[in-house]
Amino acid sequence: MALPKQVKIVEVGPRDGLQNEKDFVPSATKIELINRLSAAGLRNVEAASFVSPKWVPQMADGADVMAGIERRAGTIYSVLTPNLRGFEGALAARADEIVIFGAASEAFSQKNINCSIAESIERFAPVAAAAKEHGLRIRGSVSCALGCPYQGEVPVASVVDVVKRFAALGCDEIDIADTIGVGTPKRTREVFEAVTEVFPREHLSGHFHDTYGQALANIYAALLEGVEIFHASVAGLGGCPYAKGATGNVATEDVLYLMNGLGIETGIDLAQVVEIGDFISNAIGRPNVSRAGKALLAKARSEARSEPNTCA
Amino acid sequence: MALPKQVKIVEVGPRDGLQNEKDFVPSATKIELINRLSAAGLRNVEAASFVSPKWVPQMADGADVMAGIERRAGTIYSVLTPNLRGFEGALAARADEIVIFGAASEAFSQKNINCSIAESIERFAPVAAAAKEHGLRIRGSVSCALGCPYQGEVPVASVVDVVKRFAALGCDEIDIADTIGVGTPKRTREVFEAVTEVFPREHLSGHFHDTYGQALANIYAALLEGVEIFHASVAGLGGCPYAKGATGNVATEDVLYLMNGLGIETGIDLAQVVEIGDFISNAIGRPNVSRAGKALLAKARSEARSEPNTCA
Repeated sequence: MALPKQVKIVEVGPRDGLQNEKDFVPSATKIELINRLSAAGLRNVEAASFVSPKWVPQMADGADVMAGIERRAGTIYSVLTPNLRGFEGALAARADEIVIFGAASEAFSQKNINCSIAESIERFAPVAAAAKEHGLRIRGSVSCALGCPYQGEVPVASVVDVVKRFAALGCDEIDIADTIGVGTPKRTREVFEAVTEVFPREHLSGHFHDTYGQALANIYAALLEGVEIFHASVAGLGGCPYAKGATGNVATEDVLYLMNGLGIETGIDLAQVVEIGDFISNAIGRPNVSRAGKALLAKARSEARSEPNTCA
Repeated sequence: MALPKQVKIVEVGPRDGLQNEKDFVPSATKIELINRLSAAGLRNVEAASFVSPKWVPQMADGADVMAGIERRAGTIYSVLTPNLRGFEGALAARADEIVIFGAASEAFSQKNINCSIAESIERFAPVAAAAKEHGLRIRGSVSCALGCPYQGEVPVASVVDVVKRFAALGCDEIDIADTIGVGTPKRTREVFEAVTEVFPREHLSGHFHDTYGQALANIYAALLEGVEIFHASVAGLGGCPYAKGATGNVATEDVLYLMNGLGIETGIDLAQVVEIGDFISNAIGRPNVSRAGKALLAKARSEARSEPNTCA
């Protein structure tokens, strides 16, 4: 299959990336991050989570963040909504899209939320109905789609089953998420081949983690399957809770470098994203784990040093 | 094209990886590294460089290293030989394969060795002839094959031209090296498609750097072109001299994780290589930059901690 001519990159750094940071990131920093990302051309930013602050204290300021950002025309600001209460918050905050979620792994579902996969998704029915009623987009995220920290192998049929359930709830877009980064291109292709049988390819996205270094190879494999939407996190924000010190979300800079090299349009300015990666890494005191980001920053700095001194 | 059923991994850590380390790595450490790598199943190890110690002081102990290692039956120990003097050293050290090299970038060749590409390769003619005479394998390494730090773009025709010159010298194997890691899968495919027209695919190898995070995507693209030999460096040893702090050689652990996931045989024990990566990173006081390596080490340690205390 020919590669897509253009893709949509969904920036998940402000929510998925930051949510596991121990020290609270000030709302002003989150707002600057989101504003800079949308200004760099990211047309979809996962901005907040309307979850109980007891569960995820880092996301307690979702309403303030959503109220503080500059809304860029055409940009979709997504928020996570675990329940109707969260949906009400999202609605009040004028979110463009809500995100609901479920694991493709029965063991993960039982261990994390103490119920079956089917039950966990059924619980989102009133949230999805309310979103439809108010004209909000709905995104369904299938976690552990390429492997699970508890049960290991996840059958492709389980992923297909969750995709069908999300489709039945009226999801506009569905993410195939390799939550722990264990997938490789073979499994990526198998899963996307299977799910495109039950949901339109152009509304499926790939959410890859780089824990085992496989994310870009998987993205390339998904591109070859015709997938046109990918998630990424600036500076690779977000570690892996299942392997301390290991890498989490694939870095937006690395994904953009790939797309640029393949001649696939994203509408996003890589140089700006590299600067944003530097900004947020410094702001929260965390190493920048984007390889392209680090290489481009090093290059820019060495070029700056060898420039003639124009101040003389 | 179907993926290959098996591939050869050439471990370049002991030479390409270590050569830019500032502090001298003791010969005993180099020897242990090479012995452990061959014991883990790596059938081809780039072990030393017979270059003037004035140029590369880290490689000054090549003869001692080659004399100290245990030769594993069937394993190819390669050494770099920049000239006839180096070849004599390699012969005395009982190297199985010599490595000669040339850039596909005219600017790189001029800047680095002050002569044209054609001249630089012609200088290897007596070395290649001597290797043939003594029955040593010859590997030709084409550097800057996907991009150059000085001239940027490198024409595919230049890569093809250097491959032809190496073929004319009698090379048994030829490396397509992305020395600065700027390539993406599109260029990787274009270059391999072109060079397989002039040299047998099964004797071409891919040498990728992960500076921009693209190495595994490029390896996957090369696998789809039928390439069966790949270079890698345990723990990602070897930085990028053109971008301080940036990543160099792709990590062996990450490549093995990919091959295992694709069901491609390597004959190499990933778990052992992960331990070797930990050993050499600690030995030389350098962070382990293999993502699979770090994730698997973190996993092994957390599993070890949660084991019941069997000492009680």
